[in-house]
Amino acid sequence: MEDEFVFITKISPEETYQKGLVRGIGDDAAVYSSSDQMEQVVCVDTMVEGVHFRRDTLSPYQIGKKGLAINVSDLAAMGAIPTYYLVSIAVPPSWTEEELTQLYKGMNELAETHRMDLIGGDTVSTNDVLVLTVTAIGLVERGKARYRDQAKAGDLIFLTGYAGTSAAGLDLLFQKGLHGPFSIEEQELVKAHQEPLPHVIEGRILSTANKRISLNDVSDGVASEANELAEASRAKFIIKSDKLPIHKAMHSYPKEKQLKYALFGGEDFVLIGTVPKEDAKDLEEEFHQIGLMFEIVGFVEEGEPGVFLLEENKMKKVEKNGYNHFKKRG
Amino acid sequence: MEDEFVFITKISPEETYQKGLVRGIGDDAAVYSSSDQMEQVVCVDTMVEGVHFRRDTLSPYQIGKKGLAINVSDLAAMGAIPTYYLVSIAVPPSWTEEELTQLYKGMNELAETHRMDLIGGDTVSTNDVLVLTVTAIGLVERGKARYRDQAKAGDLIFLTGYAGTSAAGLDLLFQKGLHGPFSIEEQELVKAHQEPLPHVIEGRILSTANKRISLNDVSDGVASEANELAEASRAKFIIKSDKLPIHKAMHSYPKEKQLKYALFGGEDFVLIGTVPKEDAKDLEEEFHQIGLMFEIVGFVEEGEPGVFLLEENKMKKVEKNGYNHFKKRG
Repeated sequence: MEDEFVFITKISPEETYQKGLVRGIGDDAAVYSSSDQMEQVVCVDTMVEGVHFRRDTLSPYQIGKKGLAINVSDLAAMGAIPTYYLVSIAVPPSWTEEELTQLYKGMNELAETHRMDLIGGDTVSTNDVLVLTVTAIGLVERGKARYRDQAKAGDLIFLTGYAGTSAAGLDLLFQKGLHGPFSIEEQELVKAHQEPLPHVIEGRILSTANKRISLNDVSDGVASEANELAEASRAKFIIKSDKLPIHKAMHSYPKEKQLKYALFGGEDFVLIGTVPKEDAKDLEEEFHQIGLMFEIVGFVEEGEPGVFLLEENKMKKVEKNGYNHFKKRG
Repeated sequence: MEDEFVFITKISPEETYQKGLVRGIGDDAAVYSSSDQMEQVVCVDTMVEGVHFRRDTLSPYQIGKKGLAINVSDLAAMGAIPTYYLVSIAVPPSWTEEELTQLYKGMNELAETHRMDLIGGDTVSTNDVLVLTVTAIGLVERGKARYRDQAKAGDLIFLTGYAGTSAAGLDLLFQKGLHGPFSIEEQELVKAHQEPLPHVIEGRILSTANKRISLNDVSDGVASEANELAEASRAKFIIKSDKLPIHKAMHSYPKEKQLKYALFGGEDFVLIGTVPKEDAKDLEEEFHQIGLMFEIVGFVEEGEPGVFLLEENKMKKVEKNGYNHFKKRG
């Protein structure tokens, strides 16, 4: 992961000192400096044991890592540089101290990758299930944050990684349990579910690029996130089914299953967005030069806000959680 | 509460525009501007139903209000201006939508008092008890945040309000239930428990005063917070038992009970701190001029870090959660 540091430094060498000095961590609140040049980005997410994660599919270490990853992905979707995080955790008696240590270790490992500092939190007791709430704070150059409402007719839709790998990995875990056995290819899917890597570098390229870009992270599946972009931008999104990037470990799956995972799977933490057609080539080259994925998966049209799947010349309306109805293209 | 606005404006007229414009709330993260002049202050607290609050002593409205108050009090203890908050909530089926609306209404009411904006959050399902996590963000002028480690021998110890009222109110609620009946005086104690008001104005006076001040909020009782100050400052704190400000509704209580509430009660959300002896008079006058409490309750000495209660010429060591042993003064 050392590459990420080098790359972020390349984008903006002044970022390291702009992060500022944190003080007061021993107090109930943390204090850190800010600047006129950068905007603050903040988000929070809660994971409930038995609802958002299960101990038979994730280790404590992975639960921690993922709890932070969800938030870092939200920052990445804004094009921000992750800087700090706070952890509030309600711990039931069913968790041992060692398991809790592992959970923090998982968070710490991802945090170090992004040079994030843990600056506060709250650990409390509960009688039932573990509830993990992470607040993440990032920085983005003034006016450079990326939002969902920037898509326009004529734009192309892109993805910065595979869609559906996390959901496919989860299904494998349900089938075979936490310890498998998994083939080498299956292991990649399982890993994508257990230890997803937020697309911070990708977000930074997209926020520092001087182009009109709408952006979202794929936390609830491509269908859901594309619908959010379409609604926020008041535009019609057309996704070409044969352009969705599907991990090679899923190539043997039936086409329908691949599509189900890709559109409705969620937790991939890749980025989805739009860019004007004339700017797509430049971005693609920039991504590919450093070995990152940038896949054009569709285009934006005038029309009622919504998402459609174009498959063998047929149009299917794609709602957030499933297909709605069929419609002839043209 | 309108007075608070006027007063905050008086302290620092540029605060309103420094708060900046919030954008991106529709996205998974919020973006807001920051400045070179102000430092960011952030804190998070979690309340678990059945552990930190009970529905037979607090209404949903009060649970919300208190959930935010705990965090605003942490900001007040740093001398910060509260600006934004984020709410993560795990909701079990036992809570109705109306109760949840009331909870948010309680938070909103306190937020409006301090002109705080809700800029994000996460609402998730859980099967057991409600878990409320609030992240609060504030601003303080660069270098003006107040910490715990500034006390020195010769300083005086102050409180900005009554000690023990919240605990006394809680005991009344346990005895008589949520709906009483309570005498007029008892109602004040009950209200102090159910709807405590964080001492933001007091914190602002103390952070903008050009004096060496250590500061903490009384969330876990005077004994616990004074011990934190003493430990952080490596100093010995002497509290005079007859100087602790006790609410008039508790004057009829036995002396021992008054002291128990005051020292070990918690959740009063007043501020405790230290100031050099020669600066105490100025501060006291500033507080009293606008009708705020500023009570000198003891002094700081050289010695092993710890807290002692001076009562009728006897010294009692006060640990965070109780008395330890007796010791003759002198």
